[in-house]
Amino acid sequence: MPILPRAAGLAGLLAALSLPAGAQEAGRAPQGPLTIARQGSFFVGGRTLHSDTLSTQPAYAPSGTVTVDQMYVRYQVPADAGARPPLVLVHGCCLTGKTWETTPDGRMGWDEFLVRRGYPTYVVDQAWRGRSAAHPTTINAVRTGKAGMDTLPTVFAAGQEDAWTIFRFGRRHPETFPGLLFPLEAQEEFWKQMVPDWNFSVPSPNPSVTGLSALAKRLEGAVLVSHSQSGIYPFQAAGMSREGIRGIVAIEPGACPAADWDMAPYKGLPILVLWGDFVGESPRWAPRLQACRDFARTANAAGGRVEVVVLPEAGIRGNSHMLMQDRNSLEIADLVLGWVNRNVEAK
Amino acid sequence: MPILPRAAGLAGLLAALSLPAGAQEAGRAPQGPLTIARQGSFFVGGRTLHSDTLSTQPAYAPSGTVTVDQMYVRYQVPADAGARPPLVLVHGCCLTGKTWETTPDGRMGWDEFLVRRGYPTYVVDQAWRGRSAAHPTTINAVRTGKAGMDTLPTVFAAGQEDAWTIFRFGRRHPETFPGLLFPLEAQEEFWKQMVPDWNFSVPSPNPSVTGLSALAKRLEGAVLVSHSQSGIYPFQAAGMSREGIRGIVAIEPGACPAADWDMAPYKGLPILVLWGDFVGESPRWAPRLQACRDFARTANAAGGRVEVVVLPEAGIRGNSHMLMQDRNSLEIADLVLGWVNRNVEAK
Repeated sequence: MPILPRAAGLAGLLAALSLPAGAQEAGRAPQGPLTIARQGSFFVGGRTLHSDTLSTQPAYAPSGTVTVDQMYVRYQVPADAGARPPLVLVHGCCLTGKTWETTPDGRMGWDEFLVRRGYPTYVVDQAWRGRSAAHPTTINAVRTGKAGMDTLPTVFAAGQEDAWTIFRFGRRHPETFPGLLFPLEAQEEFWKQMVPDWNFSVPSPNPSVTGLSALAKRLEGAVLVSHSQSGIYPFQAAGMSREGIRGIVAIEPGACPAADWDMAPYKGLPILVLWGDFVGESPRWAPRLQACRDFARTANAAGGRVEVVVLPEAGIRGNSHMLMQDRNSLEIADLVLGWVNRNVEAK
Repeated sequence: MPILPRAAGLAGLLAALSLPAGAQEAGRAPQGPLTIARQGSFFVGGRTLHSDTLSTQPAYAPSGTVTVDQMYVRYQVPADAGARPPLVLVHGCCLTGKTWETTPDGRMGWDEFLVRRGYPTYVVDQAWRGRSAAHPTTINAVRTGKAGMDTLPTVFAAGQEDAWTIFRFGRRHPETFPGLLFPLEAQEEFWKQMVPDWNFSVPSPNPSVTGLSALAKRLEGAVLVSHSQSGIYPFQAAGMSREGIRGIVAIEPGACPAADWDMAPYKGLPILVLWGDFVGESPRWAPRLQACRDFARTANAAGGRVEVVVLPEAGIRGNSHMLMQDRNSLEIADLVLGWVNRNVEAK
């Protein structure tokens, strides 16, 4: 089933949604006060370890216990959630949960929009990123001569010129793709969202994956919404256990499950793989889209329910890799919600 | 004026507050749905720089531009804020804005409670911490032989045994002070809040201080609420400019302004310095409390309005360094709000 009947337009999109009272128009930010039933934050996962190189400063002891690998989760549950499944939003490379909040040009983020659409919404910081502690003591081990320089952690920052191409603002910095919908006039605020990435240093299995699995179980049924670097995580989590995973939305995943993976974990699981525009012009992304199409074919032949949607093929043009911040971000959110409503079992 | 008339009790405390309709009892978490007018997140500050050691991974270019020193801010404005001044919450060492959110044992955090009390509330992650990017490229400079090992950044993690004493759960791990109000049964969840601290690596002036100054101006009048390591930041921000700073609440500050600082920036500015219990038994904290008393005396002799409150002297016993997470955290929050209401000009 196509994600959106051609020519259905916004009215058709709205009809496909299951919205709380007062929701007025697809793709538009609801106005007025927001009433939430509850909100808060917590951690999932985590591992306790001892280190003798916690600190090189006299004010803090070098030896002691720390907890790492936990994943920070912040949530809001709307007053009118009904039986709608909770949505878990996972950011990509070099970013944090901020990805889903207020856009760089100051518009409503998906985090609030989904709540206003009636969905309990959970935003995480990947393990070792943002409010989820990295484990930095190898730096001090090298500094104090207890370990070799080759043990320094791999921590990288994506430069803005590099990110420009990766996020498909244009073929190369500072060119822009024609009709690009990313709000480049606010790029300064966007670059501030980027943080150092420890992803090459995290243990295996990736604690963000085990964290997502734990979170899905705790929520007793969630849709895992991943982006870019985290794209593969929900698939890996489902491979560990299907418990609590009611659906997957992979937005421009860095990888889909390889064709030689066991497809059993995806049998009957609603999966949407969503891509923006200009993918064919990107040597980084074009092969990944192709790999996702291959995955969909293989998984669906084994009883899967994978749908790959490329927005320009559905008539929606101009989206960058940062779909959730593009000018039509809320229209895309409603499109995802329409898919969730048609495919994912209510609680 | 004492922060709370002795023997006034909770009823007296409530009378001293200026609460929105429906607020029922001092120190109690309001029940039921929460209605907010608006919420979101943004950054203040930030500096753009070029680096040739952004990455050692082929997937990401080594050279490029990054933005650092910005400070992440997340806010909620209640529907009934009226003329109440916005409150800015700044966490301490080795922690993030999570400090003010849901407590380790799952009770409502100050971030939500203050909103439910009708105050616009802004929670930050200090620069180089949490969702505010650190600048890690010196690690890669050393790794690639472009810089000496002595240029590795100072990044420390406070061990749990060390933090036990610093946060005054007891004289030493695992002893506890009698009557301690910190929810130690949830300590595992608390330890997960701790993150590596780059504070010894940040430039001078501390970008969290310039960020707070920028934030206060943007809010056109805020009360800056600091804790521990960040305790001195609002004082430093006021030293840069009084514009937008309507009051300071320093909770167990790591430092108060030294007696030989210029006291002019504090003239007429309402300042509350708040301390918990067991301070006299802590070689780390007792001298800092004394230094704050000295500051108060000096500042007040120069036209200041500094009040130092030590909770056990006001009959409230058992508070750790983590006041905002202790079992009576909301009572303490109401106590602070009572002080704000009596001392800080409305907008």
